[in-house]
Amino acid sequence: MKKLLVLFGANMNLLGERQTNIYGSTSFDEMVRLIENHARSCGLETDVFQSNIEGELVNKLHEAREKYDGIIINAGAYAHYSYAIRDAISAIKLPCIEVHQSNIYAREEFRHKSVIAAVCVGQISGFGHAVYPMAIDGMRYVLDAH
Amino acid sequence: MKKLLVLFGANMNLLGERQTNIYGSTSFDEMVRLIENHARSCGLETDVFQSNIEGELVNKLHEAREKYDGIIINAGAYAHYSYAIRDAISAIKLPCIEVHQSNIYAREEFRHKSVIAAVCVGQISGFGHAVYPMAIDGMRYVLDAH
Amino acid sequence: MKKLLVLFGANMNLLGERQTNIYGSTSFDEMVRLIENHARSCGLETDVFQSNIEGELVNKLHEAREKYDGIIINAGAYAHYSYAIRDAISAIKLPCIEVHQSNIYAREEFRHKSVIAAVCVGQISGFGHAVYPMAIDGMRYVLDAH
Amino acid sequence: MKKLLVLFGANMNLLGERQTNIYGSTSFDEMVRLIENHARSCGLETDVFQSNIEGELVNKLHEAREKYDGIIINAGAYAHYSYAIRDAISAIKLPCIEVHQSNIYAREEFRHKSVIAAVCVGQISGFGHAVYPMAIDGMRYVLDAH
Amino acid sequence: MKKLLVLFGANMNLLGERQTNIYGSTSFDEMVRLIENHARSCGLETDVFQSNIEGELVNKLHEAREKYDGIIINAGAYAHYSYAIRDAISAIKLPCIEVHQSNIYAREEFRHKSVIAAVCVGQISGFGHAVYPMAIDGMRYVLDAH
Amino acid sequence: MKKLLVLFGANMNLLGERQTNIYGSTSFDEMVRLIENHARSCGLETDVFQSNIEGELVNKLHEAREKYDGIIINAGAYAHYSYAIRDAISAIKLPCIEVHQSNIYAREEFRHKSVIAAVCVGQISGFGHAVYPMAIDGMRYVLDAH
Amino acid sequence: MKKLLVLFGANMNLLGERQTNIYGSTSFDEMVRLIENHARSCGLETDVFQSNIEGELVNKLHEAREKYDGIIINAGAYAHYSYAIRDAISAIKLPCIEVHQSNIYAREEFRHKSVIAAVCVGQISGFGHAVYPMAIDGMRYVLDAH
Amino acid sequence: MKKLLVLFGANMNLLGERQTNIYGSTSFDEMVRLIENHARSCGLETDVFQSNIEGELVNKLHEAREKYDGIIINAGAYAHYSYAIRDAISAIKLPCIEVHQSNIYAREEFRHKSVIAAVCVGQISGFGHAVYPMAIDGMRYVLDAH
Amino acid sequence: MKKLLVLFGANMNLLGERQTNIYGSTSFDEMVRLIENHARSCGLETDVFQSNIEGELVNKLHEAREKYDGIIINAGAYAHYSYAIRDAISAIKLPCIEVHQSNIYAREEFRHKSVIAAVCVGQISGFGHAVYPMAIDGMRYVLDAH
Amino acid sequence: MKKLLVLFGANMNLLGERQTNIYGSTSFDEMVRLIENHARSCGLETDVFQSNIEGELVNKLHEAREKYDGIIINAGAYAHYSYAIRDAISAIKLPCIEVHQSNIYAREEFRHKSVIAAVCVGQISGFGHAVYPMAIDGMRYVLDAH
Amino acid sequence: MKKLLVLFGANMNLLGERQTNIYGSTSFDEMVRLIENHARSCGLETDVFQSNIEGELVNKLHEAREKYDGIIINAGAYAHYSYAIRDAISAIKLPCIEVHQSNIYAREEFRHKSVIAAVCVGQISGFGHAVYPMAIDGMRYVLDAH
Amino acid sequence: MKKLLVLFGANMNLLGERQTNIYGSTSFDEMVRLIENHARSCGLETDVFQSNIEGELVNKLHEAREKYDGIIINAGAYAHYSYAIRDAISAIKLPCIEVHQSNIYAREEFRHKSVIAAVCVGQISGFGHAVYPMAIDGMRYVLDAH
Repeated sequence: MKKLLVLFGANMNLLGERQTNIYGSTSFDEMVRLIENHARSCGLETDVFQSNIEGELVNKLHEAREKYDGIIINAGAYAHYSYAIRDAISAIKLPCIEVHQSNIYAREEFRHKSVIAAVCVGQISGFGHAVYPMAIDGMRYVLDAH
Repeated sequence: MKKLLVLFGANMNLLGERQTNIYGSTSFDEMVRLIENHARSCGLETDVFQSNIEGELVNKLHEAREKYDGIIINAGAYAHYSYAIRDAISAIKLPCIEVHQSNIYAREEFRHKSVIAAVCVGQISGFGHAVYPMAIDGMRYVLDAH
Repeated sequence: MKKLLVLFGANMNLLGERQTNIYGSTSFDEMVRLIENHARSCGLETDVFQSNIEGELVNKLHEAREKYDGIIINAGAYAHYSYAIRDAISAIKLPCIEVHQSNIYAREEFRHKSVIAAVCVGQISGFGHAVYPMAIDGMRYVLDAH
Repeated sequence: MKKLLVLFGANMNLLGERQTNIYGSTSFDEMVRLIENHARSCGLETDVFQSNIEGELVNKLHEAREKYDGIIINAGAYAHYSYAIRDAISAIKLPCIEVHQSNIYAREEFRHKSVIAAVCVGQISGFGHAVYPMAIDGMRYVLDAH
Repeated sequence: MKKLLVLFGANMNLLGERQTNIYGSTSFDEMVRLIENHARSCGLETDVFQSNIEGELVNKLHEAREKYDGIIINAGAYAHYSYAIRDAISAIKLPCIEVHQSNIYAREEFRHKSVIAAVCVGQISGFGHAVYPMAIDGMRYVLDAH
Repeated sequence: MKKLLVLFGANMNLLGERQTNIYGSTSFDEMVRLIENHARSCGLETDVFQSNIEGELVNKLHEAREKYDGIIINAGAYAHYSYAIRDAISAIKLPCIEVHQSNIYAREEFRHKSVIAAVCVGQISGFGHAVYPMAIDGMRYVLDAH
Repeated sequence: MKKLLVLFGANMNLLGERQTNIYGSTSFDEMVRLIENHARSCGLETDVFQSNIEGELVNKLHEAREKYDGIIINAGAYAHYSYAIRDAISAIKLPCIEVHQSNIYAREEFRHKSVIAAVCVGQISGFGHAVYPMAIDGMRYVLDAH
Repeated sequence: MKKLLVLFGANMNLLGERQTNIYGSTSFDEMVRLIENHARSCGLETDVFQSNIEGELVNKLHEAREKYDGIIINAGAYAHYSYAIRDAISAIKLPCIEVHQSNIYAREEFRHKSVIAAVCVGQISGFGHAVYPMAIDGMRYVLDAH
Repeated sequence: MKKLLVLFGANMNLLGERQTNIYGSTSFDEMVRLIENHARSCGLETDVFQSNIEGELVNKLHEAREKYDGIIINAGAYAHYSYAIRDAISAIKLPCIEVHQSNIYAREEFRHKSVIAAVCVGQISGFGHAVYPMAIDGMRYVLDAH
Repeated sequence: MKKLLVLFGANMNLLGERQTNIYGSTSFDEMVRLIENHARSCGLETDVFQSNIEGELVNKLHEAREKYDGIIINAGAYAHYSYAIRDAISAIKLPCIEVHQSNIYAREEFRHKSVIAAVCVGQISGFGHAVYPMAIDGMRYVLDAH
Repeated sequence: MKKLLVLFGANMNLLGERQTNIYGSTSFDEMVRLIENHARSCGLETDVFQSNIEGELVNKLHEAREKYDGIIINAGAYAHYSYAIRDAISAIKLPCIEVHQSNIYAREEFRHKSVIAAVCVGQISGFGHAVYPMAIDGMRYVLDAH
Repeated sequence: MKKLLVLFGANMNLLGERQTNIYGSTSFDEMVRLIENHARSCGLETDVFQSNIEGELVNKLHEAREKYDGIIINAGAYAHYSYAIRDAISAIKLPCIEVHQSNIYAREEFRHKSVIAAVCVGQISGFGHAVYPMAIDGMRYVLDAH
């Protein structure tokens, strides 16, 4: 059974509590369950990890090399400046999909650029919580193609 | 039964023939069938339209107002400079999803910016042909949320 | 009797239907009648032409050389990037007035720059539908000064 | 009877004397009479005020709040950098129309940007002296629409 | 009794030891006491927290939601690039005041821009240690106005 | 008894009348009294001067050399482009504090940069009317430190 | 016998009529004959196609794949922004030579950049009508080298 | 006898009092006498005018048309942003020489650009007080060449 | 005996495992031994510390003040945006040498700029593992010169 | 018989030896013979001059005024920054054709801009060694048109 | 007797021959005599040196250290990019005056910036041949002030 | 025995004489001896060449192809703009190490970018005279790795 790591970056733990007009009212824990359920129904195992500390996300990506078949990452604000996470993604050579629940291209200028996009296999932006099942489905296509 | 319009812009008719290292070898016609099949299995009808002429894409978007529930668009190179298509999308008020088969953020600088992204509900980039079923699934979430 | 060509570019056919908070609720056809009436009351004939296809606007500008005394153009989004239309305007050497119903300087950054402004005799921006009679009056001053 | 304030900024008093190839040979005083005549024929009263001092234009805009129904402003070079005038226009909440006799988009780069355009209802550029009667007519449309 | 969180970012623990020509010779601990004393004399409780780790500052901001009435933050260098801290501040919806002991506008170019300023209620820069009592006083005005 | 000059630039005289959502409804005269009262309670004398004319602010700064111990300046829009005021501040060598009632970093792009900030001892932005007593307190710290 | 497609973009049909100081007075039809004659004398067949519609140029490039051995293109203004034409050229993999009759580097800033240059084998700019025989000769060298 | 106007802009009246390390310790009045003496020794009459108000400098330039043969201007900080003064200089068509006592190219970035330089016959920067006699000599060459 | 701290930033622990075409196949542990051996042979003691967490690198730099005579740092991606590390380096006043195993000037644009270079005594880039003995030798020159 | 000067700039002497994948394997001397042969067959005399020293190219251009009817220049890297060569070309008023063997628009960013292009009559880029005979032919058209 | 070196850079030897509308018709040799005469009449000796080779100008500046009291340099186009000449000027520590016969600020954009200006004591631009006697006079002031 | 060429560019001959605060007081000749001694002690032969003429450095690089095993280059100011030297380095295919005695990243903005860095194997900046032995040692590692 293939295993995915779903990584959440800065402030993602507040989902459902903050800016609900942008991010909806589902709590982080409910969303984790939705992700796990969708993955299971696709025959995939998932581990979810969240941290507000950039370097812990880097650490987790390093560990992923031997444990997972692919990565789904919502790096939050780190997507826009963390070259450390970018380097970690390209170092581990697992397929990585970048997701953003909100449409980052319809928000502030600084969110229009993701420094990790170029080292991911693909990016999904917008769609609210649906980005997670969409990314899991996307990962299946990617893993099948490999 | 809900109906989607799947729009293809410049050079998309050459899929399967050009740059197969980037775009794969499935022909445009095969891809249309894959799209229709996936949509049908989701209980959605689809019409597919391709044109290399920017203004014909604008025209088609205008017609869509009364015939479709949502738009999926792979505008090709027009995504990077056609403010006319951008205006058409925001004028018609149907949910529109932007897709790119290749990861535009890993290619030439001019492809990193989409001028239509800000008026779409979401964007999917990378994943090869899988972007179409992924976008159809994404549209279902979007239509359900409305 | 002098004759004017009034050219409308991308998405202008949707006037009265789209973004009525910005463009008002008069339909495109009503607006055409208002334009014709105002022109007639000034002793001018007018032809109105709309296309969403950039090159058809170029074609129409070429034809204008032998049929009209002046051009009024609302190029829509093409105003912001169509160097083809710009070249057509400077090639035909008829006085051309650029109009925008909304105040383009109070909208998105990309609308602040018109690439055709430099080859027109003047520009009128804002004022809603009134830009058309104002442009017709402006054209009379221009034609008188020649 | 509605009243308009027509404001002239830096160097406008030299009209008819300087750069007559650009601005024509009508003197500033003749132009004031033309403005007053056109306004009167439209049933509008006008006061004309010119100053080369940025702050006096700000002062005049402040006074305008209680005396006028609208403003027509040819700020001269101040249009290109006076955020003080911009703030005054947005503070007083009267409809304001920006005019330039020459086509500012066909001149030096620094004239292509007006810092007051975004807080005016509209802008008219080019057309020589005709911008004033055109602006008066435009103001009538604006005042009628309110 | 209202409670404030006073947050210190990278390198702030070295105050009094490093670059005393810029930051003065008061030690970090002495400054904490000055802050607590001033707050107490204003009838406010304060907790002070310092970390060199960006994500720990994000964590602390999250915890603050339920424990404090306002935040005073000297993020140090993080003020200039931490969009993660910016997002945390806007997520928690407590009034936040940004302070810098040195006048950041008189130092290196990269210090002229704070990425958190736009989501704070106000910013105080310069004044040395006095920024803290000034910010406490400012917070009182802010809390009274709510 | 130490004396402060409180300088107000363009459009500041309209406080309480314009954009009350941004600037509040206290009138300029009331605000002057609040400033004078706060200063007096701190054992400081204050003179308040407002002008919409950039050069009069320069003149006033020159006169200040011999009459005051410090300057508090809300230059309004002039803060963003008046290098003349900047030069005057650095010429007179009195400590000068720049204030803005609104948070200039949360407004239009052009307000994010103050050309006088680098020659002031500090800047306070946001906090509404409270910036004045805060600046007076800040000046006391500055004068004590000299 | 090898066959070339000679493509003309926007406004090229006006050659000989417009801006004769820049483009000379030879008419488009005469120029076509000169091109055909020169090609024939080199043992090459040529088809000439002109359109003001960007997408028709794209269409023609697609058709060229099976009919021609090389392309000579004077895209007119489209050279400066048509990424759709650029993509078409790189898709079809025929050698393509970009020409401009005027020296684009001695004209307006926007003409200094060609977005199709990078996917052509070479570019010839300046030389008036001579660019066509020169490009035909260049194509012979290119075809010989393949 | 030819007459020159020597214009001084913002903060120039403080010469000899402010930043004497940059500007030297000669007072403004002494400098005026030096200028007059040097001019007289060259057979030229001079009037000196200083104002901190941009618009008064514009006014003075207008008056100069009928009274003087040439202008020497040290506009102070206004040199770097006053397009109003620029326009006045080009309107009056008298030869104008721009001077700066300090080497503006060795100071802050914003002083490296003069917006009036392009409409003056020449510029002299650096040399301290010597720029005035040097400019007077330069004006003699200019007047002789006319 | 003098002591050096050798600091490694983000992803450096993967050396020998990731991108071996760029970084070679020596493992991180082997490299540590090489560093220690070279240092010992030069009569220097070394401690090596690696962290993927920016703030832990800042903490380690703070501790270094009292324990080491110099710092050698390969900050990895943090070199390109960590102003926190930059501030830590300038705060502690120990000589610091920046190294990069790959030639950062021959890689992606964002790697061309190091934000810590300006506060280091020197930088060595390229040379693979040899940068460490080279930096140790460089540090000896630096320490001798102090 | 008309005479041409063919100028070669920096590193051009290494042709055939360096980067043969870009420049081909014909040696510089062979290429000179090809140039001379082609010119002779066109009834033109040629002199070839190569230097790696910018100023010697300037000198040669100066001498050319009296000896030649036209210039063909492959300035190598100097094309991208030598304003001295640019000035020399515009000073001597002989028609000059710029050539590059490789397509400079498909190489590094810094090669996309030629500072001499604007003062040449035309530019030919790409085509390998064929640029020389093509330029000679181009020069014949230019000389005939004069 | 004090001695000056007058240095001329690229293309300056063509004075009087090229672009006489910009540079006048005095030949280089006549100008040298004018310079020598003016200097002699001021009690100064002068040597004049011209080279089109950047490095020879650097060499000459080096030699100047022991032979001259000051430098006057018209570097021609080298002024706009020769950091080698800039470094030479700051290395030798003789007062250096930069001159340009034409007003560089009224010509092409690339001429608006001099990279040597910041290391010269002053700059004189415009005035035609008069810049040389003006610079000689300026040097006298400079040498007197030392 | 392997041979190195040590190349010095503009103004390097003045070492020990100019800006000794930046470059130290060792003379150029002493430094050459230090370089030769260090190289000899490493079993390497060295030739040292200095020129202020860019093209002579290019010539020397060309000659190096057959005589040396590696290059160490301190190009002085040419490092910042000489694309000719860059092209020479990449043409000759010998390993080249760029050195700067001062830390170029802590000096003026224009020195932060080296146009030759991308074609060298490595760069060493800072460390004063020690860069030469460090580069020699670095070259040994490079030659060993080949």
